[in-house]
Amino acid sequence: MVSDTPTDLTRLVAPIAVEFAAVDRRLREELRSQEPFIGDLLAEVAALGGKRLRTVVLLLAARASGPVSASHVDAAVAVEMVHTASLLHDDVIDAATMRRGRPTLNSRHHPSVPVLLGDHLFSRAFSLIARLPRRDAAVWLSDAASLLCQGEVLQNHYRARWDLTEAQYFDIISKKTALLFAEAARLGPALAGAAEPCALAFRRFGMGFGDAFQIIDDCLDLVGDEAAVGKTLGTDLAGGKATLPIILLLARLDGPDRDFVRSLLAGEAADPTGGGRLRDLLLRHGVIEAARDHARRRLDEAYGALEPLGDFPTRANFLMLRDLALGRDR
Amino acid sequence: MVSDTPTDLTRLVAPIAVEFAAVDRRLREELRSQEPFIGDLLAEVAALGGKRLRTVVLLLAARASGPVSASHVDAAVAVEMVHTASLLHDDVIDAATMRRGRPTLNSRHHPSVPVLLGDHLFSRAFSLIARLPRRDAAVWLSDAASLLCQGEVLQNHYRARWDLTEAQYFDIISKKTALLFAEAARLGPALAGAAEPCALAFRRFGMGFGDAFQIIDDCLDLVGDEAAVGKTLGTDLAGGKATLPIILLLARLDGPDRDFVRSLLAGEAADPTGGGRLRDLLLRHGVIEAARDHARRRLDEAYGALEPLGDFPTRANFLMLRDLALGRDR
Repeated sequence: MVSDTPTDLTRLVAPIAVEFAAVDRRLREELRSQEPFIGDLLAEVAALGGKRLRTVVLLLAARASGPVSASHVDAAVAVEMVHTASLLHDDVIDAATMRRGRPTLNSRHHPSVPVLLGDHLFSRAFSLIARLPRRDAAVWLSDAASLLCQGEVLQNHYRARWDLTEAQYFDIISKKTALLFAEAARLGPALAGAAEPCALAFRRFGMGFGDAFQIIDDCLDLVGDEAAVGKTLGTDLAGGKATLPIILLLARLDGPDRDFVRSLLAGEAADPTGGGRLRDLLLRHGVIEAARDHARRRLDEAYGALEPLGDFPTRANFLMLRDLALGRDR
Repeated sequence: MVSDTPTDLTRLVAPIAVEFAAVDRRLREELRSQEPFIGDLLAEVAALGGKRLRTVVLLLAARASGPVSASHVDAAVAVEMVHTASLLHDDVIDAATMRRGRPTLNSRHHPSVPVLLGDHLFSRAFSLIARLPRRDAAVWLSDAASLLCQGEVLQNHYRARWDLTEAQYFDIISKKTALLFAEAARLGPALAGAAEPCALAFRRFGMGFGDAFQIIDDCLDLVGDEAAVGKTLGTDLAGGKATLPIILLLARLDGPDRDFVRSLLAGEAADPTGGGRLRDLLLRHGVIEAARDHARRRLDEAYGALEPLGDFPTRANFLMLRDLALGRDR
């Protein structure tokens, strides 16, 4: 679900409600297996679902430019499968125990289960997208998936290091998050038969939107949100991931404060946020606001990319996505 | 390399020598990265190479039915990438320390490295095959990859269990090994423009060949081979994998001998082969020979599938593959 308030979700997906529901159904169909125990595991995976925000972007971009078809539903299912596969593998890598308030697969099964189910999802995604009438769809999705993996490799490479630069951070998030949003956004118009400039405009939207979404996600991980339920703060930091607010903060600190933040990043603290001290530093140095400014700039660029398209049928819905990216509705 | 005796390899790949060498080169090109440290890791992965037997089958089947082209080289690279990705993930799952006489990636790096590099290989493979002129190629490879994962899931599900049936074993090996050989064999003629019956005949060959190859591999894991260098025996058994000879043996045993083999499978022994006792039981009950008979029958079926094709340019080379599958040259 996109939001805790069903009215918002209903409004957001109103022009694509039928296809949005069809994606979930198709995903569950695709994840059936003749082996009952594999089927049970895959049903758990399908329920991981989350916001299905890539689907929303893909379908709204499709509806912006032409008729929404069964190909769009299949493409969205493939995108969600790639996203879910990367979550499964992330959880194995991070040895995460909880995701979206539920115990992770890797915390309840042999590591083979999430590793292989992730691989299975990857393969099913590519099989599904390779069957679509537009053949470059498969190239776009597989290239995005391979860069997504490179982004994850980089993120893991820079784990527990305090010398990650802003440029490296932006490179990582564009690969691991924005690109899949970008290809989802491009697949909508491309499969609706829209002209290439339109598809590329939506792709640029997806890049900016995805970057902003990840930056805000990284802020919420540190300072939370009144709407957040059952979320543990500072899990990125505890996992040695330096995100934008931390990079900005380290650049402003020296002496014991800097040593303190570095020690948190190195995993040398029981409480990943060091009690309230990290929060105080983040707020005193205004780095959460500075990071949110970055996100707002990327959103301005994202919406700027759609300007040449003038008015289009789902323009109001795209504007609702802005609040969602800024964390007001998630 | 296919064999320790270079002459055999030279003879085997003679009609496809140029393309066989090109596959290795293309694979290394594909695995380059702008990030030096990712490039280094990928070069290690490319060196994992092994026998490149799927490439040999694909190219010989191509040459059997028409001209060998750059598409065949790309398809072989994609198949090798899927195979290598599954090896990387297998090693993570099995926590294996050695492969082909070298320390595994997972024994020297954070588990994120082989998990994500495997994902990267999967994605690159699908991107490469999605670019080929024949679009069902991508569907065949991704469907084979997804069944390969299902085969691995099943194998892990039945780990340390002594009630695995012959039928379940054959289902697992056809999914995890034979199907990729089958699709490699089909891709050759399909991309050479051969008629569908020809492509399907080679696909059936690949299924039988792949089954036989895996059965013999499973035998060699238990009793070794005079040519095998630095191979630890009984690693499947130590990993709780009941292979055909063990299934056949358990069906013939009772009392303390059966309890002994079950305890090996349950991992309740320091030496995975229980000293010489397992070997004695395997030989006394003739189950290695019985398993090899199974392999020979599958090979007969494989070569039977090629009979309708009459004489074809690489027929002699295909016959050399029979010895290779039976373990005489590996």
